[in-house]
Amino acid sequence: MSRLIEELKKLPGVGTKSAQRYAFHILRATDEDAAALADAVRGLKASLRLCSICNNVTDVDPCAYCASPSRNRRLVCVVEEPTNIGAVERTQMYQGVYHVLHGTLSPLHGVGPDQLRARTLIGRVERGEVDEVILATSPTLEGEATASWLASALRSFSVKITRIATGVPAGSDIEYADEVTMARAIEGRRELK
Amino acid sequence: MSRLIEELKKLPGVGTKSAQRYAFHILRATDEDAAALADAVRGLKASLRLCSICNNVTDVDPCAYCASPSRNRRLVCVVEEPTNIGAVERTQMYQGVYHVLHGTLSPLHGVGPDQLRARTLIGRVERGEVDEVILATSPTLEGEATASWLASALRSFSVKITRIATGVPAGSDIEYADEVTMARAIEGRRELK
Repeated sequence: MSRLIEELKKLPGVGTKSAQRYAFHILRATDEDAAALADAVRGLKASLRLCSICNNVTDVDPCAYCASPSRNRRLVCVVEEPTNIGAVERTQMYQGVYHVLHGTLSPLHGVGPDQLRARTLIGRVERGEVDEVILATSPTLEGEATASWLASALRSFSVKITRIATGVPAGSDIEYADEVTMARAIEGRRELK
Repeated sequence: MSRLIEELKKLPGVGTKSAQRYAFHILRATDEDAAALADAVRGLKASLRLCSICNNVTDVDPCAYCASPSRNRRLVCVVEEPTNIGAVERTQMYQGVYHVLHGTLSPLHGVGPDQLRARTLIGRVERGEVDEVILATSPTLEGEATASWLASALRSFSVKITRIATGVPAGSDIEYADEVTMARAIEGRRELK
């Protein structure tokens, strides 16, 4: 029992109290339910891997986006985490493929360029397989640093490098925009023709 | 007393309870304090007016922004309300002047182009006094409709018309951007050179 509690506590946001609750729930569950959970945990690691092209989490390699014939493989959207792909997909307007870095540059946490999974992306660009790289890391300190580094790493190749817009969120009043966001919205203004 | 309560209830967000509290406070206040409040209310209307150039609320005409010799009068930032000027000023990077519309297009509320105070702006542009108009209405339904209308009203003159960027706010994770904002951030991406 205490071994299970220790293992459950390794999950993000799960403390001793929650781990105990989960453990007692499993104790009271049927043998089938407990076995199903154990199998699901084991099965995840056995069946999931990273896409060899874009690093997305997938059960088949290459992943569904990289393998799709309807996707434009010459347009690559770079995101920090696999879950960020969902944020882009929900727009229902993106028809390119992805590249997942699995993190951001963070010198304080010992994450330098060598720890980011950017190698396969640089290879794709180097081989002339890409027309445009959209840097869709978050407009946070780490996300901006990562975008800058990647832009300079790709600059020597003939590829268009773009950055998603920072600005006032759709539907919100400029009165509630913080000054950095407002400054970026003015800086990044676009000409209406 | 009930006349005062009725008048106080006309203030935004003030109901009967609050109006009564204010009225009793004024009743208990010194004669000087009550007179000072009455004078301040009367004085506001007597001393404040709208700037004849930009419609900003001001005590001198033209307002401080329009009169300032250090401001670039050929760059005009269009906002919905006088308070929005503060949102732009807080960025400490804007050196142009303003134009206040005092509202947005809102057909449902009977606000059409004729109800917006855009005439003096159009006049400035018509006389060739402006190089660039920045449309800084909010990226809401009404704000966008107002920006579109104003852009088309100014299009026939030789003036650059720009719109502030809509996108992911600075410092926030793209994971929390709604799909419309994310779509606008991708659409509005900028090339890094």
